[in-house]
Amino acid sequence: MEGEIIKPQLASGFRDYLPKDMIPRQEMFDVIRRSFERFGFLPLDTPGIERLEILTGGDPDFKKQIFRTSVGATEDSDLAMRFDLTVPLARVVAAYQSELPRPFKRYQTGKVWRGERPQAGRFREFVQFDADTVGSKSPMADAEIVSLMYETMTALGFSNFLIRVNNRKVLNGLAAYAGFSDEKNAEVLRAVDKLDKIAWEGVREELLREPGDPNNPGVGLTIAHADAIKKFIDIRGGTSKQTLDAVAELMANSPVAQEGIGELREVLAAVEALGVPEKNWIIDLSVARGLGYYTGPVFETILNDMPSIGSVFSGGRYDDLVSRFSSTTIPATCASVGVDRLFAAMEKLGIVPIRSTVTKVLVLNFEESCQGIVQQAASQLRRAGIPTEIYLGQEVTIKAQLSSAVKQDITVVVIIGGNEKEKGVAVVKDMKQRKQNEVPLEGLSEAVKALL
Amino acid sequence: MEGEIIKPQLASGFRDYLPKDMIPRQEMFDVIRRSFERFGFLPLDTPGIERLEILTGGDPDFKKQIFRTSVGATEDSDLAMRFDLTVPLARVVAAYQSELPRPFKRYQTGKVWRGERPQAGRFREFVQFDADTVGSKSPMADAEIVSLMYETMTALGFSNFLIRVNNRKVLNGLAAYAGFSDEKNAEVLRAVDKLDKIAWEGVREELLREPGDPNNPGVGLTIAHADAIKKFIDIRGGTSKQTLDAVAELMANSPVAQEGIGELREVLAAVEALGVPEKNWIIDLSVARGLGYYTGPVFETILNDMPSIGSVFSGGRYDDLVSRFSSTTIPATCASVGVDRLFAAMEKLGIVPIRSTVTKVLVLNFEESCQGIVQQAASQLRRAGIPTEIYLGQEVTIKAQLSSAVKQDITVVVIIGGNEKEKGVAVVKDMKQRKQNEVPLEGLSEAVKALL
Repeated sequence: MEGEIIKPQLASGFRDYLPKDMIPRQEMFDVIRRSFERFGFLPLDTPGIERLEILTGGDPDFKKQIFRTSVGATEDSDLAMRFDLTVPLARVVAAYQSELPRPFKRYQTGKVWRGERPQAGRFREFVQFDADTVGSKSPMADAEIVSLMYETMTALGFSNFLIRVNNRKVLNGLAAYAGFSDEKNAEVLRAVDKLDKIAWEGVREELLREPGDPNNPGVGLTIAHADAIKKFIDIRGGTSKQTLDAVAELMANSPVAQEGIGELREVLAAVEALGVPEKNWIIDLSVARGLGYYTGPVFETILNDMPSIGSVFSGGRYDDLVSRFSSTTIPATCASVGVDRLFAAMEKLGIVPIRSTVTKVLVLNFEESCQGIVQQAASQLRRAGIPTEIYLGQEVTIKAQLSSAVKQDITVVVIIGGNEKEKGVAVVKDMKQRKQNEVPLEGLSEAVKALL
Repeated sequence: MEGEIIKPQLASGFRDYLPKDMIPRQEMFDVIRRSFERFGFLPLDTPGIERLEILTGGDPDFKKQIFRTSVGATEDSDLAMRFDLTVPLARVVAAYQSELPRPFKRYQTGKVWRGERPQAGRFREFVQFDADTVGSKSPMADAEIVSLMYETMTALGFSNFLIRVNNRKVLNGLAAYAGFSDEKNAEVLRAVDKLDKIAWEGVREELLREPGDPNNPGVGLTIAHADAIKKFIDIRGGTSKQTLDAVAELMANSPVAQEGIGELREVLAAVEALGVPEKNWIIDLSVARGLGYYTGPVFETILNDMPSIGSVFSGGRYDDLVSRFSSTTIPATCASVGVDRLFAAMEKLGIVPIRSTVTKVLVLNFEESCQGIVQQAASQLRRAGIPTEIYLGQEVTIKAQLSSAVKQDITVVVIIGGNEKEKGVAVVKDMKQRKQNEVPLEGLSEAVKALL
């Protein structure tokens, strides 16, 4: 390689995961995967690159958020990087309908790309981890998603978290219930969604403000509308069952809300039967989970110790998964891990042990005449399933090699020099207890296992 | 989503992995990962998108094989998709030199993209799985790569394979030994590399043919040169030690070959000490592993039952890893799994069990009054670590739900109807043995475990 030296620089908005970050991340992914598989979700993989039309649905305004890709300047101009795993799932469900089980419970993890303007803390590539149950309308499928969230969070080591459950149909019933026009429903929800941030006074002001001001448009409701909404919002703090009873009474005049409440009653019964403790989930009428997308039950997961980071595990039911690709209607309900938020929380709460290495044992390598025995010892340990390195660095003294083990946070060091070779033994050094022991070579892996 | 229905079509040259493909693929990846970690290789992750200059090293001819990517038409025009994991490793080593252990043993797996013209069996996206030891010149590091290959192949379930080892320095010594000019070395190797395909007669013809014909240029050696090369090639069939002794004598006049032979002697001793059986590896002077890239020992792995698919696991030493990004010289030695070939071989040889599901247990769901118990039973099984589904499909009869379990190849079915509910039991049906048993609900997971 001739030529100028090139600066080893990441593209802006992208990041590396060095081993110290990647080891605990992989452990998190493994736990999530095992948990998803315990519910019978099956792994799927789809390419990072899709036809542009698949991703945008033909909507030209979509393109600006998407990484387009091509090999030459002219060919393949219709390719782009996926920005989520849901559109590829829809393509797969539409394309392989006859091959897939019904319902199709699939999970998928992989990188997605979004063409955000690079800025601090905003990334353009990230990992998604989704589970979707495709092809079942049953509230039992929604309840399973809540149970999946609970079991996964628990398996990851969290205990102080709350899964908040609502139903978009209840929120869609607000117009009929409070008496404002249906078209205003989205704006009302957008305002109500700010409740945690700007409190009721702020929400009310926005609801009452006239829509005239283009910079700060209000919703333009009447005081009576706002009072009715306040009554709805005030249904809080009770048990899930109390909440459902209260809202059923309050919204008696809204058929769509009643339908949503009926679904939530089924979810409630199933979530209880699935053994999700009351302290870890609740029906919360304020949960909206964005606009447009979801059509039934919605879920989000809040960490009680760090509520400000928002939901770390969210999802909901959406009933037109494949409409872009097929004239059939296929319902789906999903959960998506907020990988980066969740990992940040695990680090902050000390749930994930920070390790800079997977290696448990370093076999020192300081006498040329002992290299054969050193290699045999390493092989014995590896074959016993113990991650083992032979020291291959520049240092030649025991002391310097030992300090490399300390630096890398390695648990056990094995020392074999001329004396040990002659006696057929190895010195096994417990780096935490600062103790050492001489053991016969043939019993090495047993002796090391006892220390791990 | 309004508008026309879009055909759910993959981009050309890309593929989906449905669960039946993805389940065994993931198992293969898990085995490889565990094996790599047992050797103390640490996980690394880098982005799919890099700055173009990083990938090409500034070479404009490189671009045509690369997927360029950008968000808008003008901005970010310097971005591209990685085409391997080695260049990103070099960037990481150059960028984080002070943070990384020395030597740095890392593994990485992920997708890479190559802008090949789409054609049958040629893909534009594939998974790579690499291990590299960066920063050690020692032949012990090379020997560890051979041991890693052996242990990984064995862990995957292969036994009838051969790891072929050579040293590029020995091949680079051919010119001095046979007496042709150094510039012809690459052409000679290219011809000799065809030995398996066109036999010695074909190779000899190419070596002797004049370089004049632009469509079919020969190397233009003399008969004496060709005879000397034949003697070199004929050193085959003996043990690794016999091969080294014979070539050391034959190439006594080539210092670079002698250096390579010396390194191979060290590799030989270490590979033996690491416990790689003689039947699974050999020093084979005909192995070249392409041109230009490698600078020392090279490795490839052949399946004796399917030699025609070529090497399934290859690697070698390359001593200018970071030269593009830094003025320091950092040596490295690597192994790279041929993921697709290896998986195809595992399928063909029946090493990997084909399963269309991860689910072990289906709990039938045919009586509304029993849904609560059904859910409790599923939760009990899941918490015992058993992948369990509740039947959520359209069928309402036991018979139809059972046949769905058969179709999905599920091992155990649990049946709880009104009778069972009353008695506090579940019927556990072993789908392979076609036997069934009534067990008390509280002992369900124990009873199921006994059948798995």
